[in-house]
Amino acid sequence: MRIAGVIVEYNPFHNGHLYHLQKTKKQTEADLVIAVMSGNFLQRGEPALLSKWTRTRLALQAGADLVVELPYVYATQKADVFAWGAVSILDLLGTTDLCFGSENGSTTPFLRTLEVLEENRDFFNQQLKKRIASGISYPQALNLAFSDLHLTGDDFIDLSQPNNILGFHYVEAVVKRKSAIRVSTIKRQKAGYNQATISDAHIASATAIRRAIFSGEDFNHLQNLVPPYTYEALTQARQNRTLRRWDDFFPLLKYRILTTSADEIAEFYEAEEGLENRLKKHIRQAKNFSNWMERIKTKRYTWTRLQRLCTHILTGAKKAEMRPAAQFAPPTYIRLLGMNEYGQLHLNSIKKRLNVPIISKVGRNEEALMAIDLRAADCYRLIQPASDPSEFDCVPIRFDHASKTFVR
Amino acid sequence: MRIAGVIVEYNPFHNGHLYHLQKTKKQTEADLVIAVMSGNFLQRGEPALLSKWTRTRLALQAGADLVVELPYVYATQKADVFAWGAVSILDLLGTTDLCFGSENGSTTPFLRTLEVLEENRDFFNQQLKKRIASGISYPQALNLAFSDLHLTGDDFIDLSQPNNILGFHYVEAVVKRKSAIRVSTIKRQKAGYNQATISDAHIASATAIRRAIFSGEDFNHLQNLVPPYTYEALTQARQNRTLRRWDDFFPLLKYRILTTSADEIAEFYEAEEGLENRLKKHIRQAKNFSNWMERIKTKRYTWTRLQRLCTHILTGAKKAEMRPAAQFAPPTYIRLLGMNEYGQLHLNSIKKRLNVPIISKVGRNEEALMAIDLRAADCYRLIQPASDPSEFDCVPIRFDHASKTFVR
Repeated sequence: MRIAGVIVEYNPFHNGHLYHLQKTKKQTEADLVIAVMSGNFLQRGEPALLSKWTRTRLALQAGADLVVELPYVYATQKADVFAWGAVSILDLLGTTDLCFGSENGSTTPFLRTLEVLEENRDFFNQQLKKRIASGISYPQALNLAFSDLHLTGDDFIDLSQPNNILGFHYVEAVVKRKSAIRVSTIKRQKAGYNQATISDAHIASATAIRRAIFSGEDFNHLQNLVPPYTYEALTQARQNRTLRRWDDFFPLLKYRILTTSADEIAEFYEAEEGLENRLKKHIRQAKNFSNWMERIKTKRYTWTRLQRLCTHILTGAKKAEMRPAAQFAPPTYIRLLGMNEYGQLHLNSIKKRLNVPIISKVGRNEEALMAIDLRAADCYRLIQPASDPSEFDCVPIRFDHASKTFVR
Repeated sequence: MRIAGVIVEYNPFHNGHLYHLQKTKKQTEADLVIAVMSGNFLQRGEPALLSKWTRTRLALQAGADLVVELPYVYATQKADVFAWGAVSILDLLGTTDLCFGSENGSTTPFLRTLEVLEENRDFFNQQLKKRIASGISYPQALNLAFSDLHLTGDDFIDLSQPNNILGFHYVEAVVKRKSAIRVSTIKRQKAGYNQATISDAHIASATAIRRAIFSGEDFNHLQNLVPPYTYEALTQARQNRTLRRWDDFFPLLKYRILTTSADEIAEFYEAEEGLENRLKKHIRQAKNFSNWMERIKTKRYTWTRLQRLCTHILTGAKKAEMRPAAQFAPPTYIRLLGMNEYGQLHLNSIKKRLNVPIISKVGRNEEALMAIDLRAADCYRLIQPASDPSEFDCVPIRFDHASKTFVR
């Protein structure tokens, strides 16, 4: 039995994602597809446009058989930790094939790059340190340290491409776990990762779609870019005013920064090198989230890095809580978001040999285990409390594959 | 020269307050009236209906010559600490006469009650402890311990009346400071303190007025109960949606409780005896502020006590910060809110012999000194940022007594 795994955010689910999902199934000849998906806060330190429950529904409708949550401690991290958490969960769930999108459609350059990097790890780390000390941002330093290795040509990947970075760390995590997972890639169609404008009639990046949604452009146009169920979910969320972005959460962030001492802000994850003072200094004048980001950004800190810090302050994520994951600790639980009958069968078959609990329903015991995910869900829900039930009242979403309907 | 002092909240300023102010001036033959006023959060643990700056304008228009803020560390406390802070500030500012409203219009029973209480302090404290241990609320225990002294009749005051409690502690604070301030009382007109219904055509309690404002009753009716400048301020605030109550701040409170650990909540002032766990347990279900209060109140904790705790959580007021004031430390600064030309003259004349700074404008130096007042102002302003400038941009309000106009 072949079980394919995909690592996703679906913010929102679009035609490119559908292509990836269908192609994955076909290419790997999978009997089952497991999606491990970020929760309400995403890798780039942003709230998701639609809640994790809505996005789970979309994933199931699109053909995923099992949807589990990538816990907050991995989901809101740099690519290496994000990849480590996601691959680990897929591995625990018995995934045989991991399939991700890349520019050229082959895994060989990823493996080759990893190999050479491992051989030159000391030199690479030395260069990285030197570059960071020069005052540039971490991603820039990474790029330069990588280019110091002079790995060019088709044998290697270009690690300055964001999507390559994620893929690279997926491969790295598989190797690091000594996992039997077979990695393959799917050549991306048309839209580049993060590409901001809608370049093709049917495929556009999630970034471009989000931009179109908030720019007040003609909403109907989105019908060409997303499957009908996504279009319906977006339309409904727009009607209910539950399409979320950072600006919705900014008053809460501002409140916390205003009423928390610099010393206490320094306890939040990623508040390093006196950033807490910088935040305190600028918060009173900030008018909205992007105005705020403009005020605090520097050459050293990327927008994404600062967005992540803001997410951690918002959710109250402390250094001590995040440290184990940041140091590549394996997951301690798997949060089940949704499944169809095949997903359910698979879960039943592996449950007994799993050494971490699968959480379907949050009770007293789970409260401590996934405290930070619950806080993140509480924050997310606080903006429009009516839109989602509390995490304690949510049960995994069940989708009937045969009839293509949700089971109540 | 006689200088009268009044201790006020003006939430909002009404005809009863005007009577008190005018009568105070006349009865004490004062050349000047100083009002020490709670800031944006009040003694009963509530946000003020109108900001402290708007209320300062009303006080000046009504005839106060100098308006200073009662710092948060005193203003949001039990009657004894509130009174201590207010009397201390009036004393520092050279007040010769303190005048407060009472039911019978004489200070003798206040002094007599204090005397007997002092003589029996040990017995009283013993009884108080015993009563508290029985599980009733602090005010109830205070009442019963007091009744154990068997002080009845016209010689004594009834300490079960909220207004008598404040008056009693004013007198106590004057005695404790060995101050030369002469205390007198003014017999209250018509409306009792906290009386909830509007009983008279021209005098009503602030509580009744606030209730009328939020009940959606005919707003015009208020014209009979408040001076025209208050009516105008209320009308304008209603138009601008800046009439504030706890419900406006509840999302922030909910956010903080949801995303702060019980251990950290326990650091906030008045979070005693495991209250932090009670708060954490009930917050997720709370729909609005009064629904929240209904969920957390017990026989032991009064609504006011819990409201104060909520205020401290909202503003991030820690035990360590509040302790000095709670233990009757004297004020370390005086925050100037407004004055007319007489108030200014008086300030000039006493400035040199004052041993605490008078703060007109908040700068770097003042930031640490009055950190908690700044946080309270930031919280208050967060709800409708447009309504007030930040505390750093506010200067005392100047009113010209001769022309009855504000000076820009």
